[in-house]
Amino acid sequence: MSRVTIEEFERIAYERVPFVAQLGVIVEEIEAGAARLRVPFRDDFLRPGGTISGPVMMGLADLAMYAAVMSRIGPEELTVTTDLNINFLRRPLPGDLLAEAKVLKLGKRLAVGEVGLFRDGDDDMVAHVTATYSIPPQADADMAQA
Amino acid sequence: MSRVTIEEFERIAYERVPFVAQLGVIVEEIEAGAARLRVPFRDDFLRPGGTISGPVMMGLADLAMYAAVMSRIGPEELTVTTDLNINFLRRPLPGDLLAEAKVLKLGKRLAVGEVGLFRDGDDDMVAHVTATYSIPPQADADMAQA
Amino acid sequence: MSRVTIEEFERIAYERVPFVAQLGVIVEEIEAGAARLRVPFRDDFLRPGGTISGPVMMGLADLAMYAAVMSRIGPEELTVTTDLNINFLRRPLPGDLLAEAKVLKLGKRLAVGEVGLFRDGDDDMVAHVTATYSIPPQADADMAQA
Amino acid sequence: MSRVTIEEFERIAYERVPFVAQLGVIVEEIEAGAARLRVPFRDDFLRPGGTISGPVMMGLADLAMYAAVMSRIGPEELTVTTDLNINFLRRPLPGDLLAEAKVLKLGKRLAVGEVGLFRDGDDDMVAHVTATYSIPPQADADMAQA
Repeated sequence: MSRVTIEEFERIAYERVPFVAQLGVIVEEIEAGAARLRVPFRDDFLRPGGTISGPVMMGLADLAMYAAVMSRIGPEELTVTTDLNINFLRRPLPGDLLAEAKVLKLGKRLAVGEVGLFRDGDDDMVAHVTATYSIPPQADADMAQA
Repeated sequence: MSRVTIEEFERIAYERVPFVAQLGVIVEEIEAGAARLRVPFRDDFLRPGGTISGPVMMGLADLAMYAAVMSRIGPEELTVTTDLNINFLRRPLPGDLLAEAKVLKLGKRLAVGEVGLFRDGDDDMVAHVTATYSIPPQADADMAQA
Repeated sequence: MSRVTIEEFERIAYERVPFVAQLGVIVEEIEAGAARLRVPFRDDFLRPGGTISGPVMMGLADLAMYAAVMSRIGPEELTVTTDLNINFLRRPLPGDLLAEAKVLKLGKRLAVGEVGLFRDGDDDMVAHVTATYSIPPQADADMAQA
Repeated sequence: MSRVTIEEFERIAYERVPFVAQLGVIVEEIEAGAARLRVPFRDDFLRPGGTISGPVMMGLADLAMYAAVMSRIGPEELTVTTDLNINFLRRPLPGDLLAEAKVLKLGKRLAVGEVGLFRDGDDDMVAHVTATYSIPPQADADMAQA
């Protein structure tokens, strides 16, 4: 079971990470070790070629992974990304973006996960992300209690 | 000498990549193979812990590298990022962010570069980025003529 | 159906990439867009802590992805890695290593894939790799005919 | 001043990481936060196209960064790579390979660095690497005492 609810995570996103939240993120699902987020399409997301710009995808992926990590360790806001790697696979045409994040490894100090990004209604992945998060020390204690 | 001017690149950024431009990017310098961009601080860039959020840095770095590549190939808007890797080194306190991008390798089909991100007034790098860009085919022809 | 057979790929690996082949690689399966390779354990693979060293995993993953790309484009030896990103998730104890590679995107110029590395008999992934390969121009022609 | 000597590090490499050491690595210089290593050319390093294969470069870069981290924290053998990202920039023709590693950030738990790889006698970088290392807990204590 997730240690953070959709409502809790959306509140964290909108109140505490406003630059990212202004993407208009909707959290669709959080379960233990995984999260699915949606960003409804907006015209200002486009870049030359008529496809969605990379930073929209990077912001969404980072937030989706933040949710997936919190699903395991609880709402530890001080968890921070230490590195993120994105491969852009296909140029997404206008449409909602979906991010499906899952935790590959949860350690005491680091969590590693991957995120697949999709255009709604299309099975072909548009970008693949791996990212590592540093877990704050007191969260370790929480994990030990869990 | 750069094949794109500061004015040309700012126009491309603000008209053609509006989501990224709304960071409030200022292009400070473009020379052949390098670019320096600034993002003035705004409160909504902060994240828990009182530091600047990762997606602000990723968007800035991607745009800075786009400028550095155009400094070599001209204003080829269809140049796209194929992958980007960021290591977050230090959590930047409130302040302007600077991105210093340089091209490591310009090939016919791909350009690779690195970007150092700094908080204005502080010599310690806050994030390091490497990224690869795919150059549109007709730009190859331009390069051959150059 | 794969456009390269196990026998063809093992011959390429052992004759043409001898440094990597000396890992003792066994190609277990190649199908269209995917490959599974094994490296039987050897004592000299160990590093301090009694776990298998990173370069063994990187060499195996790179070769596995090379096989998966060839399964789609045929035995184009001049296909080269343009970038590779590895996240080490768990420290593998002595045992055979398995690499499961699959192509995420095959374009005309670039192929992108991911590789999961496992210790034989253990379901937990020990390392996750994404990598991009540049496809030689004449292979494009082959693909167009395919 | 480096907290590990060339002799100490070469002993660690040859006795404790034999698979990597069999590249024939020579440690040319270690100073605080930086290291330069050389791998003399061997025919079995080549791959199709007559250039040096990627895994040779990855193994060398990983070992060079391991040395650079030890230059700051001492001979903590249990320091492990958590992720490594390599961009291959140019295909190196036969010749010695040089790796120049430097630490970008040394934290209590993680160290991040970058490595430039060069063919001896040529100023153009052939590959660029960033990598993160996890520092064993007791090394933190050593650092606090330092």
